[in-house]
Amino acid sequence: MPKLVKKKSKKVGLPPGTIVHIGNKRAEKTKITIVDYNEEQFQEKEAKSIKECFPYKDKPTVTWINIDGVHEVKIIEELGKNYNFHPLILEDIVDNDQRPKIKDFVNYIFIILKMLYYDKNDNEMKVDQVSLILGKNYVISFQEREGDVFNSIRERIRNNIGRIRKAGADYLIYALMDAIVDNYFIIIEKLGEKIENIEDKVISRPKPANLRVIHKLRRDLIFLRKSVWPLREVISILQRGESSLILESTNVYLRDVYDHTIQVMDTVETLRDIISGMLDIYLSSASNRMNEIMKMLTIIATIFIPLTFITGIYGMNFSNMPEIKWVWGYPIVLLGMLIIGIVMAIYFKRKKWM
Amino acid sequence: MPKLVKKKSKKVGLPPGTIVHIGNKRAEKTKITIVDYNEEQFQEKEAKSIKECFPYKDKPTVTWINIDGVHEVKIIEELGKNYNFHPLILEDIVDNDQRPKIKDFVNYIFIILKMLYYDKNDNEMKVDQVSLILGKNYVISFQEREGDVFNSIRERIRNNIGRIRKAGADYLIYALMDAIVDNYFIIIEKLGEKIENIEDKVISRPKPANLRVIHKLRRDLIFLRKSVWPLREVISILQRGESSLILESTNVYLRDVYDHTIQVMDTVETLRDIISGMLDIYLSSASNRMNEIMKMLTIIATIFIPLTFITGIYGMNFSNMPEIKWVWGYPIVLLGMLIIGIVMAIYFKRKKWM
Amino acid sequence: MPKLVKKKSKKVGLPPGTIVHIGNKRAEKTKITIVDYNEEQFQEKEAKSIKECFPYKDKPTVTWINIDGVHEVKIIEELGKNYNFHPLILEDIVDNDQRPKIKDFVNYIFIILKMLYYDKNDNEMKVDQVSLILGKNYVISFQEREGDVFNSIRERIRNNIGRIRKAGADYLIYALMDAIVDNYFIIIEKLGEKIENIEDKVISRPKPANLRVIHKLRRDLIFLRKSVWPLREVISILQRGESSLILESTNVYLRDVYDHTIQVMDTVETLRDIISGMLDIYLSSASNRMNEIMKMLTIIATIFIPLTFITGIYGMNFSNMPEIKWVWGYPIVLLGMLIIGIVMAIYFKRKKWM
Amino acid sequence: MPKLVKKKSKKVGLPPGTIVHIGNKRAEKTKITIVDYNEEQFQEKEAKSIKECFPYKDKPTVTWINIDGVHEVKIIEELGKNYNFHPLILEDIVDNDQRPKIKDFVNYIFIILKMLYYDKNDNEMKVDQVSLILGKNYVISFQEREGDVFNSIRERIRNNIGRIRKAGADYLIYALMDAIVDNYFIIIEKLGEKIENIEDKVISRPKPANLRVIHKLRRDLIFLRKSVWPLREVISILQRGESSLILESTNVYLRDVYDHTIQVMDTVETLRDIISGMLDIYLSSASNRMNEIMKMLTIIATIFIPLTFITGIYGMNFSNMPEIKWVWGYPIVLLGMLIIGIVMAIYFKRKKWM
Amino acid sequence: MPKLVKKKSKKVGLPPGTIVHIGNKRAEKTKITIVDYNEEQFQEKEAKSIKECFPYKDKPTVTWINIDGVHEVKIIEELGKNYNFHPLILEDIVDNDQRPKIKDFVNYIFIILKMLYYDKNDNEMKVDQVSLILGKNYVISFQEREGDVFNSIRERIRNNIGRIRKAGADYLIYALMDAIVDNYFIIIEKLGEKIENIEDKVISRPKPANLRVIHKLRRDLIFLRKSVWPLREVISILQRGESSLILESTNVYLRDVYDHTIQVMDTVETLRDIISGMLDIYLSSASNRMNEIMKMLTIIATIFIPLTFITGIYGMNFSNMPEIKWVWGYPIVLLGMLIIGIVMAIYFKRKKWM
Repeated sequence: MPKLVKKKSKKVGLPPGTIVHIGNKRAEKTKITIVDYNEEQFQEKEAKSIKECFPYKDKPTVTWINIDGVHEVKIIEELGKNYNFHPLILEDIVDNDQRPKIKDFVNYIFIILKMLYYDKNDNEMKVDQVSLILGKNYVISFQEREGDVFNSIRERIRNNIGRIRKAGADYLIYALMDAIVDNYFIIIEKLGEKIENIEDKVISRPKPANLRVIHKLRRDLIFLRKSVWPLREVISILQRGESSLILESTNVYLRDVYDHTIQVMDTVETLRDIISGMLDIYLSSASNRMNEIMKMLTIIATIFIPLTFITGIYGMNFSNMPEIKWVWGYPIVLLGMLIIGIVMAIYFKRKKWM
Repeated sequence: MPKLVKKKSKKVGLPPGTIVHIGNKRAEKTKITIVDYNEEQFQEKEAKSIKECFPYKDKPTVTWINIDGVHEVKIIEELGKNYNFHPLILEDIVDNDQRPKIKDFVNYIFIILKMLYYDKNDNEMKVDQVSLILGKNYVISFQEREGDVFNSIRERIRNNIGRIRKAGADYLIYALMDAIVDNYFIIIEKLGEKIENIEDKVISRPKPANLRVIHKLRRDLIFLRKSVWPLREVISILQRGESSLILESTNVYLRDVYDHTIQVMDTVETLRDIISGMLDIYLSSASNRMNEIMKMLTIIATIFIPLTFITGIYGMNFSNMPEIKWVWGYPIVLLGMLIIGIVMAIYFKRKKWM
Repeated sequence: MPKLVKKKSKKVGLPPGTIVHIGNKRAEKTKITIVDYNEEQFQEKEAKSIKECFPYKDKPTVTWINIDGVHEVKIIEELGKNYNFHPLILEDIVDNDQRPKIKDFVNYIFIILKMLYYDKNDNEMKVDQVSLILGKNYVISFQEREGDVFNSIRERIRNNIGRIRKAGADYLIYALMDAIVDNYFIIIEKLGEKIENIEDKVISRPKPANLRVIHKLRRDLIFLRKSVWPLREVISILQRGESSLILESTNVYLRDVYDHTIQVMDTVETLRDIISGMLDIYLSSASNRMNEIMKMLTIIATIFIPLTFITGIYGMNFSNMPEIKWVWGYPIVLLGMLIIGIVMAIYFKRKKWM
Repeated sequence: MPKLVKKKSKKVGLPPGTIVHIGNKRAEKTKITIVDYNEEQFQEKEAKSIKECFPYKDKPTVTWINIDGVHEVKIIEELGKNYNFHPLILEDIVDNDQRPKIKDFVNYIFIILKMLYYDKNDNEMKVDQVSLILGKNYVISFQEREGDVFNSIRERIRNNIGRIRKAGADYLIYALMDAIVDNYFIIIEKLGEKIENIEDKVISRPKPANLRVIHKLRRDLIFLRKSVWPLREVISILQRGESSLILESTNVYLRDVYDHTIQVMDTVETLRDIISGMLDIYLSSASNRMNEIMKMLTIIATIFIPLTFITGIYGMNFSNMPEIKWVWGYPIVLLGMLIIGIVMAIYFKRKKWM
Repeated sequence: MPKLVKKKSKKVGLPPGTIVHIGNKRAEKTKITIVDYNEEQFQEKEAKSIKECFPYKDKPTVTWINIDGVHEVKIIEELGKNYNFHPLILEDIVDNDQRPKIKDFVNYIFIILKMLYYDKNDNEMKVDQVSLILGKNYVISFQEREGDVFNSIRERIRNNIGRIRKAGADYLIYALMDAIVDNYFIIIEKLGEKIENIEDKVISRPKPANLRVIHKLRRDLIFLRKSVWPLREVISILQRGESSLILESTNVYLRDVYDHTIQVMDTVETLRDIISGMLDIYLSSASNRMNEIMKMLTIIATIFIPLTFITGIYGMNFSNMPEIKWVWGYPIVLLGMLIIGIVMAIYFKRKKWM
């Protein structure tokens, strides 16, 4: 299961703007890719050093610099100095325990998002942090590790599909955010399937092992919610149209991502509702089974305990017990016990215990 | 039970505005009907091809195009191109996993609603998505399958009942929304009956099978709520009167639908409150029965276990047991056991266990 | 118990403004009473036909028309036509399943309230709908059945007590609303008594029958809340002073009703809090009793089961059992069993089970 | 325990402004004290009749009239007439079932507060209502019974301690409210102690009697909350500085009382959180003990029942039972039973039941 | 565990502005340290008397006076008089039971925060109150005891690291608040670890001792939340930029602390969610184990009770029992009992009880 709280203590006491990597080192080496395009031309390359990115800064074309791996603090620092980013931003980029947030520095907008994906090996939901910086004609994206979520966008740029080559950097950043939010739907689908799966089991035949699964799903939903909830605000600030970096024509698209985010939230809340009901159902089912077992025990015990008592009486060794010498003593006692048994069975039948 | 989450993964990675059908194919063939009217004239026909609708676009009369079945993506695309709708709208129309929402594009307003109906075959609540587009003199409605909810409106137009033929497209769209919201009351009635039904059972004689019903009703209410809640906002935006497509005289009617929506919400919340209380009642009742059973067991066992112990003593085969040779030994022991039994019964009576 | 949801399905599909009576027919015949007054004069009569009311429409005196019974749709229709009321209002008056609401039509204000009363025969809370229309110099009130809540106001008008004869129609409508809200306090008193009653029982000696009472009280509170909650908004709209039909001097009185409504809500919430705590107390008490019973069973069983086992040993018929031939065998075994019993009793005492 | 709902039914049906005393008569006789002061002079006396207060009305000095006991309706009425107070105010003063509220009548401000105190005899929290009226140069305070909360203020005025003699009537009313709010801290301290007390007990060794205490504390907190919550609004309205009766220099003090109120609320919420957790802990602890008891029973029963069965076999009187004639039969069976017992004990040890 | 409510009763009845120390005396002696600096110069000393601080008041350099220990009321009073602070502030500084709050007195801003730290000796979270006063060129900080949280800032000033020596008093107060908030992350890490720790235990093998730990963690989170929640408002007021004491360039830093506070809140809520789910899991697991135990008991008892009954029958001493004289009687009965046992075992297997 993901850690509830990430280690931040090594950062405590340092002056603000100190760039300390928080989180696991996910990528071996930082990988820098540059995509530069406008409607007519397109260029894509992998940079060996961060310095290769700097010439693109003032080109009128849209430049998308993607950096996979944020543990090499030096690279981030160099980039920050060249682009003149506020030190607090650089601190946030390398600290992977941030809430989704947005900061508008007039010349550029800084966005932090959470990317969710399902790790098939561990069969677990994992969270990556993605930082995006939108400038006048560039977008810089930072990921914790190399992922495939942005591949479809790269494809679209390469092959000039849709609006993307015609539009500016603001449309590109929209496309990146849209790709991330779209990915949430896959996670939700996965969780939804798991919940339906456990739901069937819990209702028909609850087992203690279900509990652990329910707890894990509940925890996943708490984390999912924590990632998505602040996203709403981030996109709504973007879309409010106060920044000159966002063209008005992009607004309808941002509104679309916003709607998707709301829908994700909505579904997360629904799933939470259902999973919280599930624990009640589990407990009720378990108590039903308990009842059934108790009834069985009670019926057997209350029928046989009095009968055994009777056999005990006639097992006593008193010398003066006239009944035991009667010829019909034994059959009469057997019959008596049978009658007592039947009467009790009828009583239980009446009480609806059987 | 309805799927918790619909499959959307096949859409992930596609550029925005790509029209992909999400949901089950409910109708065999797309059915297009055109109703064209004003106060004096009325025309109704079934179109064989979407092209038949286009001539009505610029007619001053009110045109209502109803499309049953949204899985034929081409039809939607062609319509969109001719009417010049934004691609994101077309994407939403064919994606049946949308929240109720409204988008105002100045020239036209786009609305998504959820239509609820009870499938008598499956004895289950089902959800259909309805998309509505209101233009200056036309309304286009999209349904997942051919339904009978709009029939009464068609009837009213045909026979010129009420205000509908005198009013414009905005009144028509109000009438369609009103028909959908009115339908919610039927669902709520149905759910209310089911809840009262299960309520009686749970209080008088709870059974494990009730649990499954309670869980299903709770789930239905969650889905109902999810469909109705955003509707409030949709209608309140419509009614705010910012669009020139809505005449002021229609406002009082929209306010009426709004009130109905609030009332539906209100009732849904009440039902949720009651059903959540029901599980507590179920658990309490079950624990009551458990108590009763346990008491029975305890009374029988605690009375007879000591008595059986006594019979055990006199069943021992020690050679030197003076009591067993006494003439009155047997009757005295029997009497002693009787007295012990009576004393215990009185004790239980005092403790209110019997 | 009151129906959770009222049958509305017979209205579905009809055009808006169609006047269909929803609810039970409570009164046999519609009863129309007219009270007409100003500071100097006073007139009171029962009208045989609704037409008798119309001449009062333009008189400068304050006219109060009270209509008991709304199932005779024709009367409502005729009245509506003469006074020129919007059809949607008439629809609402005869539909007894409305939320409390207010609609301002400039010339008149339309208000729906819920009247609550305790039916002593059924020992149940019942809900009636009251509709009020305030015009420049008239108030029209509609009730489901003839009630006695407005009698005190009639008395005050008749005998010229307090401000009522000096003030206008707006003060009259305030007086009517005040009478209805005051009535809530009686209901709350009744519920409060019942809750205190059940509270004592649940804490001292919980019985399964308490559950049903708790559930019923919870349900009553849900309904009460549903009736009162929207009232707050209704009165706050009235009091906001935007309508020219409400004089400023009436405002302080409306504020007073508003305060009463808040107080009712407050008490309802408190009662809800207490009743929801009660179920927990019930469950805890029940589990306490269960514990007590289990302890008794366990003590008896764990003491006597080993002892019975010992008697079983010496009840075996092996020919070679030296102990049973010893003279002191029997007393030693008896003593041994006594010691075992005492040791176990001490053990249970230590464990605080006894 | 305090009544959940106070009897108000005797007031229902009366015209507004009718002065009816609601609540218990707490004081024997109404006691009126007058304190009149400015920076230079100071006068204090007990008035025999309410008429003695009237001459102070127009004096420029600050006059504080304190009235203990509100059941003598005539006194309140006379005062109201002389000072020209609105009849609704007088109605509120004598009705002890009011929420804390504030009404601004421009010339005077009317405030209702709840005074809480611990009745040591009943070991219970009790609630008194205090009404305050602030005029240009006077404050009138009404209490249900003579209390000692205002003594410290009287002392401060008498001995000219702090700002009070230098400031006006607005500072006096602040001082009164501050005294009342300060008193809440004592109540909270008392409740806090009780909760910590019960907390220890519930965790270490839960007893059924704890339940009743928890329920009572929960109820006290509900009432405390109900008294304090609306106070926030009252003081925030006062402090908003819209009334000319409140000098700006008093604002910082009102802000201070406001902070105290928030702090009281905060603590009440914390205590509620903790007490609601306590019931869960109680239930869990109770179920733990149940578990322990059940385990004991199960271990004893499951070990001895099979063994007793074996003794039963060899207690049968069949003539042809070869084992019972063997010399080693008895020791072998005893050994066998010992082995079975040990194996089962090991099994339970493994299962962590022992 | 920390006291739920601190003793405040000794303050009740005193005039406002009376300086009374509330809380435990944590430091032996008040320790006063002065740090005075600007970009060029730096001075640090420990003052023997509060008077040593006064000369710095009008120096243009930034002066930071840190006072550890607030129980010596005289020192605070003298400082207050010299700096002309409002008496209510001084009252708040020495009262350690305050909510985090901010008060803007134009010439200076007064802030109260809660400092949290883990006491390793008691293995418990502890809360200290920190008061901060920001003037034009000075910051005064008050702590309950000497702590090490501000050491890193002292270090940064001493060694001129980062912006701090270049910036003004507003940046210094930001740095102090940032240090305090950063410290929360350590507390949260600690709590997170403890929760994960207990989570594992509860799911795999719940023990009654876990309950106490869960309760303690829940309580710690309630206290943490109470400390952090109002902080949000405090910082957001600071950051709103209404005070001339805060330079605009400091705003981006305040925004950063604000983000951290939100993140702390977020994590606290997540932890609360998880811990509240844990109690449910605990109860479910406990009921699972109960079920398991009950099943064992039921299986053993229901198999052996009937068998023991049979042995009882043939242990009776009736003279006329033909079966016991048969040669095959004994083996047949043994076989019969074996068959009954097997049938019952199969039955339980089918019922999934084994």
